[in-house]
Amino acid sequence: MMLAIAGDSAAGKTTFAAGLAEALGTNRCALVSTDDYHRYDRAERHQLSITPLLPKANYIDIMEQHLQLLASGQPVLKPVYDHATGHLVRPELIEPREFVIVDGLLPLHTKLARACFDVTVYLDPEEEVRRSWKVRRDTASRGYNAEQVVTELAAREADSERYIRPQRAHADLVVRFAHVDGRADPPGTPLSAELLLRSTIPQPDLAEILDSRTTGLVHLRLARDTDGRPVDSLHVHGYGSPEDGAAALAMLWAAVVDPSSDVPDGLGRVGPSAHSLPLAVGQVLLLHHLLAGAR
Amino acid sequence: MMLAIAGDSAAGKTTFAAGLAEALGTNRCALVSTDDYHRYDRAERHQLSITPLLPKANYIDIMEQHLQLLASGQPVLKPVYDHATGHLVRPELIEPREFVIVDGLLPLHTKLARACFDVTVYLDPEEEVRRSWKVRRDTASRGYNAEQVVTELAAREADSERYIRPQRAHADLVVRFAHVDGRADPPGTPLSAELLLRSTIPQPDLAEILDSRTTGLVHLRLARDTDGRPVDSLHVHGYGSPEDGAAALAMLWAAVVDPSSDVPDGLGRVGPSAHSLPLAVGQVLLLHHLLAGAR
Repeated sequence: MMLAIAGDSAAGKTTFAAGLAEALGTNRCALVSTDDYHRYDRAERHQLSITPLLPKANYIDIMEQHLQLLASGQPVLKPVYDHATGHLVRPELIEPREFVIVDGLLPLHTKLARACFDVTVYLDPEEEVRRSWKVRRDTASRGYNAEQVVTELAAREADSERYIRPQRAHADLVVRFAHVDGRADPPGTPLSAELLLRSTIPQPDLAEILDSRTTGLVHLRLARDTDGRPVDSLHVHGYGSPEDGAAALAMLWAAVVDPSSDVPDGLGRVGPSAHSLPLAVGQVLLLHHLLAGAR
Repeated sequence: MMLAIAGDSAAGKTTFAAGLAEALGTNRCALVSTDDYHRYDRAERHQLSITPLLPKANYIDIMEQHLQLLASGQPVLKPVYDHATGHLVRPELIEPREFVIVDGLLPLHTKLARACFDVTVYLDPEEEVRRSWKVRRDTASRGYNAEQVVTELAAREADSERYIRPQRAHADLVVRFAHVDGRADPPGTPLSAELLLRSTIPQPDLAEILDSRTTGLVHLRLARDTDGRPVDSLHVHGYGSPEDGAAALAMLWAAVVDPSSDVPDGLGRVGPSAHSLPLAVGQVLLLHHLLAGAR
């Protein structure tokens, strides 16, 4: 089973993938970041005045080749881009596993790459949220200061618009973290999210599930996708109590993944002690597809 | 056309390949060293007490995969082992070209790898010659002193015997540089060589060519291969005058490659001003196959 997690820089891809891998068992998963296929290191991009979002700044053809090899059960010697230093370093062997989880800026950019995946998700936090996440991460672990990150975000905007966001249209699931209009939650309140479940793959019947069980934190609505087509839109509130959140998650886990096992620990984890119900619900929906596909 | 140049460390593979690429036109050639597929860097091998000749110390499966991709006209992102430092570094893109020249310690180790090549050569200098070449090169450009190289040669002997030399049996052409018994040439006299032309590919009819043209520096003899089978053995003397050498080379070039063009400059070059007739003859025989195959 091959899963793609696409999204812009700091959209939460690594966090999403880590929770899935922990739930599936890390020894059953191969994790691949398509950002490792950067053609240029940080200094070269600076010299060329290009961003890493530009497809030509990546070995897209090699990325496609490696995805095809992994999809057919073969190992690849994957390049490695060191985000901490901005250098391209020694490659690493990726051996195929039961689940191959691919995240990155451009995994859904080409038709050939998309054809390699069984399930695809696009992480689409509202820009204000993503920007704050990016400043926090890049200053903490990538050697930038806040001003540099803001400049970098501005420099990347045109390429984000042109190359990253169009991938949203090719995802089976879209997860959008956003502030809820009209609410004044105290700082630190977990964000809520809207999850679009597209009919490009057989989605679980959430209408039936949510009709027959009780939770105030998850609401399903019929909506129109950006292209006008009908789509299921699942609203998941982040501001509920931990107890209500755990109950809602356990209910969904039992309904769409496995009624006979407990909810795995790592789902929804966004930090050493922070938890997000919307993230956990997104992960549960993905686990539904991954485990159903593996069976 | 895919060519393999196999042989032990310092057998002359890079020199052989460089002359071929220059003659073919470097823009028509992709050069690949299978030593780039080392699994461990120098420090790790030291720690594990293993030599780079050990197949398990190399990503043989990835080497096979990349050879297959190149043979089918696809690019590969090849790992890079830096011989000067002993580090594994940033990989490089290899785009398929008309001629793919692959050299290294183990390109003929597995059946799948061998199946990728149109022509194969094994460089088999006598051990005394190879040892002197290795000491000279590794002290000049790989950061070793002479004593370290001698120790390294001893440490590698068992793996050479077990993994490198068996590849000799899988080559279409074997080139053996050696001192000629009973001759006391002054120091600096180019070495002579014996070239075995196996019937595994259609070899040019050297008996007919050498019967009808005159050169005292190249002799063809019927011989028995190490497995007892009949084989053509071409003796090429290195000790002739430069003029006689040039005449012999021009004659062979016209007979087996192209009567309407001059001998390319780089053939037989073994240093800034040194030249080897046996090396040039080996290269001419390879060019015969590469250019005939390309036509």
